[in-house]
Amino acid sequence: MKKSNSVNEEDFISSIEILCVGTELLMGQIVNTNAAFLAKQFSLIGIPSYYQTVVGDNPTRLQKAVQDALDRSDAVILTGGLGPTTDDITMETTAKAIGIPLEFHNESADRIRSYFDKMHRTMTPNNLKQAMLPEGCIPLPNDNGTAPSAMIEIKKNVIHNEKIINKSNDREVRNKVLILLPGPPSEMRGMFEKYVKPYLVKRAPVEISSSFVRLFGIGESAAETLLKDLIDKQTNPTIAPYCSEGECMFRISDTQSKDSRSKTNTSKDKEFDELIFKVKERLGEYIYEIGDRNMPMVVFDLLDKYKKTVSFAESCTAGIATAMLGDIPGASRVLTGSVVAYDNKIKESVLGIPKETLDQFGSVSNETADAMSKGCRHLMNSDYSVSITGIAGPEGGTVQKPVGLVYISVTGPFSNISKELHLSGNRSRIRYVASLNAYDLLRRTVMDDSKQYG
Amino acid sequence: MKKSNSVNEEDFISSIEILCVGTELLMGQIVNTNAAFLAKQFSLIGIPSYYQTVVGDNPTRLQKAVQDALDRSDAVILTGGLGPTTDDITMETTAKAIGIPLEFHNESADRIRSYFDKMHRTMTPNNLKQAMLPEGCIPLPNDNGTAPSAMIEIKKNVIHNEKIINKSNDREVRNKVLILLPGPPSEMRGMFEKYVKPYLVKRAPVEISSSFVRLFGIGESAAETLLKDLIDKQTNPTIAPYCSEGECMFRISDTQSKDSRSKTNTSKDKEFDELIFKVKERLGEYIYEIGDRNMPMVVFDLLDKYKKTVSFAESCTAGIATAMLGDIPGASRVLTGSVVAYDNKIKESVLGIPKETLDQFGSVSNETADAMSKGCRHLMNSDYSVSITGIAGPEGGTVQKPVGLVYISVTGPFSNISKELHLSGNRSRIRYVASLNAYDLLRRTVMDDSKQYG
Repeated sequence: MKKSNSVNEEDFISSIEILCVGTELLMGQIVNTNAAFLAKQFSLIGIPSYYQTVVGDNPTRLQKAVQDALDRSDAVILTGGLGPTTDDITMETTAKAIGIPLEFHNESADRIRSYFDKMHRTMTPNNLKQAMLPEGCIPLPNDNGTAPSAMIEIKKNVIHNEKIINKSNDREVRNKVLILLPGPPSEMRGMFEKYVKPYLVKRAPVEISSSFVRLFGIGESAAETLLKDLIDKQTNPTIAPYCSEGECMFRISDTQSKDSRSKTNTSKDKEFDELIFKVKERLGEYIYEIGDRNMPMVVFDLLDKYKKTVSFAESCTAGIATAMLGDIPGASRVLTGSVVAYDNKIKESVLGIPKETLDQFGSVSNETADAMSKGCRHLMNSDYSVSITGIAGPEGGTVQKPVGLVYISVTGPFSNISKELHLSGNRSRIRYVASLNAYDLLRRTVMDDSKQYG
Repeated sequence: MKKSNSVNEEDFISSIEILCVGTELLMGQIVNTNAAFLAKQFSLIGIPSYYQTVVGDNPTRLQKAVQDALDRSDAVILTGGLGPTTDDITMETTAKAIGIPLEFHNESADRIRSYFDKMHRTMTPNNLKQAMLPEGCIPLPNDNGTAPSAMIEIKKNVIHNEKIINKSNDREVRNKVLILLPGPPSEMRGMFEKYVKPYLVKRAPVEISSSFVRLFGIGESAAETLLKDLIDKQTNPTIAPYCSEGECMFRISDTQSKDSRSKTNTSKDKEFDELIFKVKERLGEYIYEIGDRNMPMVVFDLLDKYKKTVSFAESCTAGIATAMLGDIPGASRVLTGSVVAYDNKIKESVLGIPKETLDQFGSVSNETADAMSKGCRHLMNSDYSVSITGIAGPEGGTVQKPVGLVYISVTGPFSNISKELHLSGNRSRIRYVASLNAYDLLRRTVMDDSKQYG
């Protein structure tokens, strides 16, 4: 007997794939961050994904791509091509691929009209094209644009186009679903989180609980060496490295079939906790978070917890470190302000760095970094101040001070500490990784001080 | 009679596609920048590309993907899966897909051995797996790693697997090519530039010249409506809309067949210029660039040209606007510095905004934006200063001052101008689009002033 709120096995989505539509992707005008975002979500939800495809705004190729995807996967997420122009053909082509007609959707039309009113812009007639949706679909209202989205469930007993849906011979016919989302990442992500994720979580065949152990200050291979025996003997829970630009993390995952969930929860939880405990024993010094928060969020929460404020004095990073904090809602509780002191004269006049310090040690030096964080703390009236000065390149390096040399400094109520960094990579990477290092130094300083905050 | 250095028509590559191999792409651990890089190259070279596919390191799915790609395109570039581990199966699977055996390639083996010597690392036996290459291929030496690369030409008179190569019914059989490149972007790009690009340029059927007309302050549908007749009657040159976050552009492309090139160049150039002229007539007000530069680069070049400097006073954007300029090499020539004034007390103490202005009008107001740019210009000793203050959300909005309300202001040597914006989207988008608007206002101001710079 199934419980009323459980999902039938035929409704489980055993695999999902991504089909991105857009000539701008085929022309290399934009990088496909949508595919990476969605793929990551699938792996967190626990639905395998074996294909990602990009096609242009071409009816013939798009229709075939939709059919191929539906043949081999239970769910297909399409992104892009939902705009109001004649190029945007994803909605009508997808409907055609599965033999469902479009119909005018009043509610979506009203939503588009009110969007234009709110933006004080005039709606052109072609915008109403976006209110044409496949018959019987689940419309997904778009809060951040006019492009409508939709989920089209294709029940196994209501097959619109037998040839397409029954093509797979190697397994039984399932209830499939097509999900159409807009191409602009900010619109797509919001709609995915709001509508699609809860839907997929419900229809996933397994439940995955996973934790990310986030490290800073250690490379992937060094960390992997310290965990080698754990990685070699893993079954479930599993542990796997997961590295991105300048950061390193391990994902610890426990995968539970939904049927067996209730039976094994307790013992599985214990194994999961034990594995995390072992990782902490080995890598504790480098762990800044076990969870989902990135470095700026961890630092934000730490400052917020102790009701402390921060300011930044940035040279080579020119605002990146401040912007990372500003990206967090509620940042005003901890951020008083910042100075970007690019010109040395500004370092003197605004941050009050003695001309002699700049003349003697140069703008890229421990001494200048120290004076920057001290001066900024005073100017910005904050509990902590963080400074960053370095050579981001590609030009401007010397033998003594090569590209990638960066000094960071933190001045707080109890201490002043600075650090020399030697970073590699291009200008963007150097500025980004320098900012992350500054956050880590601030984090360590506040953690030390927190003993005195009681 | 063909010239000796010309390419036979059967050697023209009429379409090319990308097949990226890697479980890390399917898991969303990395963004597929390789596809964007390659796609952009194809569009510059003038070889159409209609498909991008990602599959994992799975022999069955990869083999089918290679065959599908070869069925529908004359050239296929594969990236990834060329490493030494058992997971890396791209070379052997591709060879199998077209029925060509692998053979031991001595030169590649020597190269791998000397790479390990150079790195002072011990070669393990599985590294020699990387010296197994498809019989008769063109090996491409890798200067930055051990992964070998190869081009496999499949001549129409030397068909290895008739079923595969002859599958297309709608056009005559052509000489096809499979190109295998390593996955790490730094290795892939170097090898593409060195070996693959010259090869593709030679085999491209056409030569493309294109220009991007970049617009600001007008939406995609409104712009398209103004150009509708041009878009409807286009043949060659073509015009097509392309929009990215907060920006809108049109690409105008002229495609020349290599055979007809010498005859029609002049008249084609004229048509191209005429089309651009017409677009300028209709959208001139909104065009900030005809070319490849984005908004910050255009503003940077403008300031640099007139030897003027700028500073930013940022509130809700908290460093984003400054960081955009800081990302450009040589930014120090035009950027003196910036203040992020998040806390109102900082707006008073550092930027010198009268307490009465803040009390009477609030921090998000025309008056405060004005005072911020004026105060910052003085503090930062710059020719121009740009301020941004607004409500980025998601919290903090009121009926009078909703989320998305932003004021920007520019103070220069001759004028002071401010603007009220109503932006939509999430916190990130509001902050990003507010920054772009500030750049546009600065651009217009400097352009106006430039008459006086002579």
